[in-house]
Amino acid sequence: MTKRFLQALKGETLNPPPLWLMRQAGRYLPEYREIRASAKNFLDFCYTPDLAVEVTLQPLRRYGFDAAILFSDILVIPDALGQKVEFVSGQGPQLAPIKSEAELEAILNLDGLHEHLKPVYTTVHRLSKEIPETTALIGFAGAPWTVATYMVEGKGSKTYEEIRSIAYSDPVFFQRLIDMLVEATSLYLIEQVHQGAECLQVFDSWAGVLSERQFHTWSIEPMTRIVEKVRAVHAEVPIIGFPRGAGPLYEAYVRETKVDGVGLDHTVPLTWARDVLQPLTTVQGTLDNLLLVAGGEAMDAEIKRILETLGSGPFIFNLGHGIVPQTPPEHVERLCALVRGEA
Amino acid sequence: MTKRFLQALKGETLNPPPLWLMRQAGRYLPEYREIRASAKNFLDFCYTPDLAVEVTLQPLRRYGFDAAILFSDILVIPDALGQKVEFVSGQGPQLAPIKSEAELEAILNLDGLHEHLKPVYTTVHRLSKEIPETTALIGFAGAPWTVATYMVEGKGSKTYEEIRSIAYSDPVFFQRLIDMLVEATSLYLIEQVHQGAECLQVFDSWAGVLSERQFHTWSIEPMTRIVEKVRAVHAEVPIIGFPRGAGPLYEAYVRETKVDGVGLDHTVPLTWARDVLQPLTTVQGTLDNLLLVAGGEAMDAEIKRILETLGSGPFIFNLGHGIVPQTPPEHVERLCALVRGEA
Repeated sequence: MTKRFLQALKGETLNPPPLWLMRQAGRYLPEYREIRASAKNFLDFCYTPDLAVEVTLQPLRRYGFDAAILFSDILVIPDALGQKVEFVSGQGPQLAPIKSEAELEAILNLDGLHEHLKPVYTTVHRLSKEIPETTALIGFAGAPWTVATYMVEGKGSKTYEEIRSIAYSDPVFFQRLIDMLVEATSLYLIEQVHQGAECLQVFDSWAGVLSERQFHTWSIEPMTRIVEKVRAVHAEVPIIGFPRGAGPLYEAYVRETKVDGVGLDHTVPLTWARDVLQPLTTVQGTLDNLLLVAGGEAMDAEIKRILETLGSGPFIFNLGHGIVPQTPPEHVERLCALVRGEA
Repeated sequence: MTKRFLQALKGETLNPPPLWLMRQAGRYLPEYREIRASAKNFLDFCYTPDLAVEVTLQPLRRYGFDAAILFSDILVIPDALGQKVEFVSGQGPQLAPIKSEAELEAILNLDGLHEHLKPVYTTVHRLSKEIPETTALIGFAGAPWTVATYMVEGKGSKTYEEIRSIAYSDPVFFQRLIDMLVEATSLYLIEQVHQGAECLQVFDSWAGVLSERQFHTWSIEPMTRIVEKVRAVHAEVPIIGFPRGAGPLYEAYVRETKVDGVGLDHTVPLTWARDVLQPLTTVQGTLDNLLLVAGGEAMDAEIKRILETLGSGPFIFNLGHGIVPQTPPEHVERLCALVRGEA
């Protein structure tokens, strides 16, 4: 059985394009909120295969998406490396920050990685057996820069001034942290493919705050190494990179990392993406997640514009950022109908 | 006496390029901190010509920049329109948010604008007499979108989800707010030129969060109208737009607003700026403000790269964002020497 999502990542132009949504398993679904309440905290939720498998499957039942993405979190990596991660309700993740080589040395190590992540691998394995045969299974990880922002700042940030300054003032420490994350992320992704993931997406959600030079050093360069490491083991698995907010630097990112697909955020001009990026790789995106909340004619018009502009080349329909909790499920239904030409 | 800064905005290529730094009057200077302590709050500081003139002049004495920018704040506009603005120490600005047409109607009006802003005009007038004869005087305002983020959300935000959603769900209210800001901003800028400002810069600091369509509607379109309104009165005054984080949309911004100069943030790839934007307008930027904090060889190398890449066309050296308080003044000295070829 051919999976349309994988065909698109091989460079085929499909009409209608394959469709999935970032964070499609999430709080906007009542059936998700019900299950979420049964886990004592968010990381436990990710580490419980029964729950993680179930919530991964939920949106497929409603919407029949062309891909399912493993339900997990990018912060399982620092957690697996030995840095304590807590999700405080309403405040997002909190970590005891690591700001120096000595702290890195004292706290982090790769030895227990696979053991710690075993429940995630179990989830991937079970999903590979349980998803519909036309649906592709996406494994994922956070990119080193984005994961490092949480590890060094200890929580989300508006400006990422502290970590960007540390990257300038202590490049030896920072390179070491990134190197460790390249290693851990590669091992993690490789094992996900062993367990049945058919595609990998790497989320560099905070790439957009980096200066041009830092973007090359801390986003492109680590991602290039991850792609090489994964391909050395799994030559055929398609890899999507999502350096959110990269702007004109998307072009260098695609050229240098040699990803099979690139996630585009809602700021990317569609004609520019079509002319500059789509000849190089399969593009994925770009509907504004807040327009999916608003719905109505403006949403319909924008979906049409995206399909018209990007639909004539290799393309996967998605949002420009994850679904937000206040999204009405019926707007997702409308989106599916429009993309599939059924509305 | 020809002012080099104004020559560059007419499209001349100067070697060395003119130089000034966003927020050059600021907390990184001990002489600023001393004066700041004498005002009871930040808005009072902006509204006291003796203090505002003095801090505007301070960085000129130290560094002899080619331009001085009026010391003020973008939130004087909502304040002048009748929305209470407070600066809470360590937390930034706080406003009683306006989220509907009824609230706009009840709170905002243009009638007292010039009266309220008189102290700012006095500052501009005095500066035009007091700055060195080779220094150009820049007046400024916030762009409607960026000012609206504070007016609607009530404070700074990380994601601007609320205002972006309101712009989708209540476009009638939001258009009315933007229209009022276009009007107020134009009146404010026109009067600054009457009082002696020789150039205007419009800061759209949060333009980078807008979707492509929203960027056209809420950043480009209002700015185009402001440029037209100002030029209808002052045909010759050069105008710089700074839609920070606009990415590839910088190109449409420059083409459509027809600004004389464009401020580039630190994420903009230099060769792209040289090839795509510099043929259209004078470019200004782009040193990472955190690299100015870090200093050292990395800073020296980046300054050299910027000069080499953008120095062969119309260019004004600046940062990609305002100076931060932790900047060592001696790094600014080093920057000046390097840009001027004196190091």
